[in-house]
Amino acid sequence: MSDFASVPLYHQLRAACAAEWSAYTEHRFVEALARGRLPESCFRRYLIQDYLFLIHFARAYGLAAFKAETLEDIRAAAEGLTAMAGEEMKLHVAYCEKWGLSEADMAAEPEAHATMAYTRYVLEKGLAGDLLDLQVALAPCVVGYAEIGRRLIDAPNTVKDGNPYAAWIEMYASEEYQGVAAAHIAHMDTLMARRGGPGRLAALTTTFHQATRLETAFWDMALEP
Amino acid sequence: MSDFASVPLYHQLRAACAAEWSAYTEHRFVEALARGRLPESCFRRYLIQDYLFLIHFARAYGLAAFKAETLEDIRAAAEGLTAMAGEEMKLHVAYCEKWGLSEADMAAEPEAHATMAYTRYVLEKGLAGDLLDLQVALAPCVVGYAEIGRRLIDAPNTVKDGNPYAAWIEMYASEEYQGVAAAHIAHMDTLMARRGGPGRLAALTTTFHQATRLETAFWDMALEP
Amino acid sequence: MSDFASVPLYHQLRAACAAEWSAYTEHRFVEALARGRLPESCFRRYLIQDYLFLIHFARAYGLAAFKAETLEDIRAAAEGLTAMAGEEMKLHVAYCEKWGLSEADMAAEPEAHATMAYTRYVLEKGLAGDLLDLQVALAPCVVGYAEIGRRLIDAPNTVKDGNPYAAWIEMYASEEYQGVAAAHIAHMDTLMARRGGPGRLAALTTTFHQATRLETAFWDMALEP
Amino acid sequence: MSDFASVPLYHQLRAACAAEWSAYTEHRFVEALARGRLPESCFRRYLIQDYLFLIHFARAYGLAAFKAETLEDIRAAAEGLTAMAGEEMKLHVAYCEKWGLSEADMAAEPEAHATMAYTRYVLEKGLAGDLLDLQVALAPCVVGYAEIGRRLIDAPNTVKDGNPYAAWIEMYASEEYQGVAAAHIAHMDTLMARRGGPGRLAALTTTFHQATRLETAFWDMALEP
Repeated sequence: MSDFASVPLYHQLRAACAAEWSAYTEHRFVEALARGRLPESCFRRYLIQDYLFLIHFARAYGLAAFKAETLEDIRAAAEGLTAMAGEEMKLHVAYCEKWGLSEADMAAEPEAHATMAYTRYVLEKGLAGDLLDLQVALAPCVVGYAEIGRRLIDAPNTVKDGNPYAAWIEMYASEEYQGVAAAHIAHMDTLMARRGGPGRLAALTTTFHQATRLETAFWDMALEP
Repeated sequence: MSDFASVPLYHQLRAACAAEWSAYTEHRFVEALARGRLPESCFRRYLIQDYLFLIHFARAYGLAAFKAETLEDIRAAAEGLTAMAGEEMKLHVAYCEKWGLSEADMAAEPEAHATMAYTRYVLEKGLAGDLLDLQVALAPCVVGYAEIGRRLIDAPNTVKDGNPYAAWIEMYASEEYQGVAAAHIAHMDTLMARRGGPGRLAALTTTFHQATRLETAFWDMALEP
Repeated sequence: MSDFASVPLYHQLRAACAAEWSAYTEHRFVEALARGRLPESCFRRYLIQDYLFLIHFARAYGLAAFKAETLEDIRAAAEGLTAMAGEEMKLHVAYCEKWGLSEADMAAEPEAHATMAYTRYVLEKGLAGDLLDLQVALAPCVVGYAEIGRRLIDAPNTVKDGNPYAAWIEMYASEEYQGVAAAHIAHMDTLMARRGGPGRLAALTTTFHQATRLETAFWDMALEP
Repeated sequence: MSDFASVPLYHQLRAACAAEWSAYTEHRFVEALARGRLPESCFRRYLIQDYLFLIHFARAYGLAAFKAETLEDIRAAAEGLTAMAGEEMKLHVAYCEKWGLSEADMAAEPEAHATMAYTRYVLEKGLAGDLLDLQVALAPCVVGYAEIGRRLIDAPNTVKDGNPYAAWIEMYASEEYQGVAAAHIAHMDTLMARRGGPGRLAALTTTFHQATRLETAFWDMALEP
């Protein structure tokens, strides 16, 4: 029980799928981006699918508000939803415009299988299970991007001057985004205390593992020829 | 088809349960409130249960965001959720404090059956059906209160001077709240065009009817000795 | 922790709301039924509302199948659903016919608020939470009726000869129904081990408590003048 | 409007994505199977993933029971669920054993992305939308396999003697399975009359289209080297 209580759930989950976690967070897509060598067509495909992804992620925050058991959790989900469907989406759209992608163009693109797979997996897991299942399914995305950003910003191999993807790295390394991820980690521990117990670790680990694999598949999709 | 297309869905639904609609919107609770003759204990019970009610209503807006099929609908639901769990709730709490009710006191009260019945009915209808089913289940509350406010503010029998409930009437008669209700009516028509057809009227009428009866039961509860 | 592991969850939940549990299982309706003194009109109202109740209870078993995480749980829910929507419903309908109630008549009756309140509460709880939340919300009905049947069949005050409600008591006291209830109790323990922990007890107790109160309100409704 | 009323919804949906429908129902996997030339390793991978798929498909029938608005629809879903989780699953397991695959082995395999993508897509669509959305998302599977079976059994190119996959073709060409598919088609029309209208066609077409693409991805997965 002592480990269970003292190690944050997030770290237990990540430790239980170390190989998959590296495959995701140190993916060729990420490394090429850090070195400024990612083909622009791949990045554009990523941006388009990320736009479609965000729409369903916003819906996941709506679902979290419905599933919340405390006013505090409802408000946290409301903030996430408003950020996601409002400011985040607008920032993403503004950023994409610099890459020559209009919102109308992106909205008209078909969702890639990898986009459908991850987003529907998260939503369905949240509906079949409870708020903790939902937050764990979201974690590889919410926390993983923060980890990628923080690692890349300090990495000796990361190219900063003239790297067209520098702004992407800075965004996820920013204090603001790091705070979002830290809050997500803390919220999982609160929920584990309120709705969990050692018996849940096996299923939560499977969820985290599957969601991590689906994130990897998302990068794979962006690199497809 | 011409009627179907030209008369707003909301007016069709209300016309199909005229007697129940009057029983709700012209309830003894409402009339006593307008005349300033409602016992304070009844109003306090109403305020407490309305606080508990709002928590679940906020959850319904979260559910609407999840069920939305367009970014526009996600954003509208996000606004409703943020208003409900944020500003509306705070206004309600501030208003209740004037009546000697602290938020902690209200949160500690058990939910009345009438509160559980209506809130869970709405949420369950929204989950079993689609976004239109959800919005129709919410309509007696969202639009009904606007109708009550508008009628009372102009009614010759309404006591304005020295009526301790005048602020309540003014809030629901306010232009801002009337706009919320008008948007709800318009949204139902949009959804009826996108997801509806004459075949749905029967079930939607049942939903509207049941939700109206549950609103009446909510007033009844507040008046219980 | 030792209590937590050794006492079945069901007994912990019931012990935590002893007064409400007695109010439900020893309700005036039940006692009058045992003595053969329940007005027939009350029993008919009960039968009608129980018919409408069963429809939503069948839906709850469908929901349990969706929320199941193991093939075993899916199959258990499938059996429950098939029993509920098939054989149970047919037995209920055949029994009601002896009381002069046709299925068409019952289906045409409006749902009482008490019927809506409990059924939608259970379904909504199951959707917002997980399978354990759902099974706990169902327990006062599934297990409570078994307890009532077993207690009444042996009670010295129960009238057996000439009691028009004897068949009702026998049904819920039957070995078959006792087995259904025992399986429900065991399933809650399995789920508590797999998805639970001490932290969940508070919320599960609230759910059990609220569902018990809603069962009491169901008897109250049947006795209304 | 006349077309809308007279042509079954299923045929409208299929006509709206003719190219994708051919890509799915005349997939290389299907053609190789018909000619007895499909590598056994591909068929085994298909059988394993189909086993994992069936578990989630059974859950979809549970969800359909929850979302049903009539006792008739609840019973139809209950039958589907029982068939799927019971008889169908056992037949599948027995069939797989002939191919050297035990149930325990299959249950231990990780779900392929293609399996997760389609099953979660169907479940999430059913939860976000209504029963019609769910049935349309299921249709490419339920009806598509019937179409494949019927076409192959009569096709001049299909190898019958000594084709190790002959039993698979016969199963889906069987009168029993054809009846299941015909019932699904009829049910979609019932639901379209009750909950639909011309306005829904666009979204339903997208759903059918996406589900068809996800079926194609399922065959692709089985053929992966």
